[in-house]
Amino acid sequence: MFESAEIGHCIDKETYDAEEPALREALLDAQYELKQQARFPVIILINGIEGAGKGETVKLLNEWMDPRLIEVRTFDQQTDEELARPPAWRYWRALPPKGRMGVFFGNWYSQMLQGRVHGQFKDAVLDQAITGAERLEQMLCDEGALIIKFWFHLSKKQMKTRLKALRDDPLHSWRISPLDWQQSKTYDRFVRFGERVLRRTSRDYAPWHVIEGVDPHYRSLAVGRILLESLQAALANEPKGKRQANVAPLGRSIDQMSLLGALDLSQRLDKADYQEQLVTEQARLAGLLRHKAMRRHALLAVFEGNDAAGKGGAIRRVAAALDPRQYRIVPIAAPTEEERAQPYLWRFWRHVPARGKFTIFDRSWYGRVLVERVEGFCTPADWMRAYGEINDFEEQLSNAGVVVVKFWLAIDQQTQLERFEEREQIPFKRYKITEDDWRNRAKWDVYRDAVGDMVDRTSTEIAPWTLVEANDKRWARVKVLRTINEALEAAFAKQKN
Amino acid sequence: MFESAEIGHCIDKETYDAEEPALREALLDAQYELKQQARFPVIILINGIEGAGKGETVKLLNEWMDPRLIEVRTFDQQTDEELARPPAWRYWRALPPKGRMGVFFGNWYSQMLQGRVHGQFKDAVLDQAITGAERLEQMLCDEGALIIKFWFHLSKKQMKTRLKALRDDPLHSWRISPLDWQQSKTYDRFVRFGERVLRRTSRDYAPWHVIEGVDPHYRSLAVGRILLESLQAALANEPKGKRQANVAPLGRSIDQMSLLGALDLSQRLDKADYQEQLVTEQARLAGLLRHKAMRRHALLAVFEGNDAAGKGGAIRRVAAALDPRQYRIVPIAAPTEEERAQPYLWRFWRHVPARGKFTIFDRSWYGRVLVERVEGFCTPADWMRAYGEINDFEEQLSNAGVVVVKFWLAIDQQTQLERFEEREQIPFKRYKITEDDWRNRAKWDVYRDAVGDMVDRTSTEIAPWTLVEANDKRWARVKVLRTINEALEAAFAKQKN
Repeated sequence: MFESAEIGHCIDKETYDAEEPALREALLDAQYELKQQARFPVIILINGIEGAGKGETVKLLNEWMDPRLIEVRTFDQQTDEELARPPAWRYWRALPPKGRMGVFFGNWYSQMLQGRVHGQFKDAVLDQAITGAERLEQMLCDEGALIIKFWFHLSKKQMKTRLKALRDDPLHSWRISPLDWQQSKTYDRFVRFGERVLRRTSRDYAPWHVIEGVDPHYRSLAVGRILLESLQAALANEPKGKRQANVAPLGRSIDQMSLLGALDLSQRLDKADYQEQLVTEQARLAGLLRHKAMRRHALLAVFEGNDAAGKGGAIRRVAAALDPRQYRIVPIAAPTEEERAQPYLWRFWRHVPARGKFTIFDRSWYGRVLVERVEGFCTPADWMRAYGEINDFEEQLSNAGVVVVKFWLAIDQQTQLERFEEREQIPFKRYKITEDDWRNRAKWDVYRDAVGDMVDRTSTEIAPWTLVEANDKRWARVKVLRTINEALEAAFAKQKN
Repeated sequence: MFESAEIGHCIDKETYDAEEPALREALLDAQYELKQQARFPVIILINGIEGAGKGETVKLLNEWMDPRLIEVRTFDQQTDEELARPPAWRYWRALPPKGRMGVFFGNWYSQMLQGRVHGQFKDAVLDQAITGAERLEQMLCDEGALIIKFWFHLSKKQMKTRLKALRDDPLHSWRISPLDWQQSKTYDRFVRFGERVLRRTSRDYAPWHVIEGVDPHYRSLAVGRILLESLQAALANEPKGKRQANVAPLGRSIDQMSLLGALDLSQRLDKADYQEQLVTEQARLAGLLRHKAMRRHALLAVFEGNDAAGKGGAIRRVAAALDPRQYRIVPIAAPTEEERAQPYLWRFWRHVPARGKFTIFDRSWYGRVLVERVEGFCTPADWMRAYGEINDFEEQLSNAGVVVVKFWLAIDQQTQLERFEEREQIPFKRYKITEDDWRNRAKWDVYRDAVGDMVDRTSTEIAPWTLVEANDKRWARVKVLRTINEALEAAFAKQKN
């Protein structure tokens, strides 16, 4: 895999000087075209052997191109904020928007390689990290991103020479590295595991480019050319052809039974029971969130449901007993301009709670497989792959200790009609009802199928859906609170074992 | 994930009897259309809870449709032949050709689930198996296959009732199962790990369909409908749109250096040295293949090279000293009709050596990234993804103990010209030279780039390429033999540690 990066590639100064100006100009042109089209982001991953010219190359790219349109990100030690969230969070927050380039200098690959080289884990765990990286990259590419992966290589002998030169150079002697490259064993292990990583993650949608790092002229021209050709090819592409999903369509219910239909919507609480249970559950939640086990967890609640099912009221009852510093309510409406320039899940990743915190999503990423599916705002291929992407997302949350609870508040058509009419009657509730609500109501059956598929495909042990009978608001509110409390207690109990 | 398969779906006999005839007819129609088009194979995976009607459903599918076009495969205990090869071999040999349906009853999922439920390995290893399954399915779908995955589900209570009924029924009491389903713990673990597997492998190109197994009418109609709709959708698709690869193009050499260019083709052996070394290495190989360590290994040698580089002669020198029962030479020419009806790698999988055996490929799967790339026989997206698929393939070989050695026999243009002319002069060699050879020769530079990319992307620690300087045939033959011997000795030594 590294053979042809050890044969002593080099380019003489004359050739380099002759070629560099045209390359720079073409790169600049491509960069502005990228900005103009603003159709996709470019993510450049920089990895490889210490001393192989990674830093110099990144510096050069910034000189050659317009640095205002390049975001260079280094990922060294995780910050406190990053440590409090799933590992991928630091990469999501650093993604370049469409039309711009992000240089990830140190990234998911350096992280997994360092861990494996240091012997923090074995191959099986490395393979899990590799799979995670593949899924992330595939998702990014499915969302349109252009990913260019560079591995800067040196033979062991070349590396030793180079490290010595750097050490003797006062301009560079401040460099530190998380791996002790002076050890010959470090090089061997890094190359061995590096090969495993490259072999498995060099995929058609995001192949690796191995660059011999000895000669700066060669290195720079090679990187510049690959970058230029990749950019030009992607810019010339038609707006990206969606992968044709040769898939089995999702089954519709063939008997008249459905999960939602199986709910007993007549369940209710009388006022006295409600008052008592509500207060009990609220106090229980407040206590749990102050529990010391909460330091190792976060809580994330998703509220979805029929229009007028009482999401807002339920959320208020959850929040009522809590310290406002501990929770956040994130209402999800149409994405902002900044959010539209990012992959679909980006606007949810940014609100992932830190450990100890509680985030309530009033509507959520499930919009993709509900309203966007029903209204045709995205293609079937998009929402079909969303189920898998969402499960990946929630698995990452769960692995990081986030307790995920998801509610679908269900009412029947008659109850909805009554609530709509009531809203139209009462002046201070009139803002709550719009034309959209009536339109959605006409699509009742289509939504019911979408909800059924959603629950079937995303209700998992680590992030189960709870269907809430919400014809009676009291019943619904207490059930929501109790479910959250039980989920937290189960997580705390599991942690103890 | 299994919620809506525990709500007691059922369909009354009247409805069933009314719907069944039309469904059968439509399925038969689709089946014949599938055969007619012969554009893609259909792979149906049958998994799930014991007693949930898997066997009955497969039986029914064969009654409903034309059983001559359905191949039902069960995968129980591996046979000796299967145990002697990589685990996936049993599935490759059972793949249905284009135009036909294969029902895989018990498959890669049952295998990994049984292992995990029995506690033979932990989650990290399960995840490796899951990744392997995903890669296999993605490759099959990229090659055009329609994969339909059914999970037959029962709640624990339903399962117990059903198992009891089956046990009391003399027609069924002979059934055995590799898992002890009478144990409540078995069910719990199976469902828990099953959910992990479904969550991670339900992808847009091959989603799972969970079927509640209690009511036979519901179960049968549900499966029939999903199968029908999937078939109809796939049959109506335009010949499959290739995934547009938003990829960086492969870099061409920007200095004039290349791996092949860096070879010292002047290396040679005089006749006496050659005779001596040849005999020594041949004896060494014969000894190694008889070594008892060979029982845990197989040997696979790939020969590629320039036309007239001497592949045939080198292969003969390797084979010369061996027992013909121990090795096989597989010459790769244009694929047969049967092979064209299968995924690209199928015709190589079928020749994978069993443990203790030695297979020599005279040309190989690398044709995809050499001649097929250069001649445009496949799309760039196809050969770009071939690098990854080939690495996956060779990793599976290596994991199963197969020692993989790959040779590129390199000569220069002048030597090739001399050999071509010699072949045209000498009557008994004339069959060896064709118009194609002269045509390929004109594409010397294009082939050189393709070989460079091939080595860069597929020369790995587990399956390295050896570039053989072949201007001097003696040198080449001895180097080939010595490389094979060293690879075998290294593998035997590693095994001892």
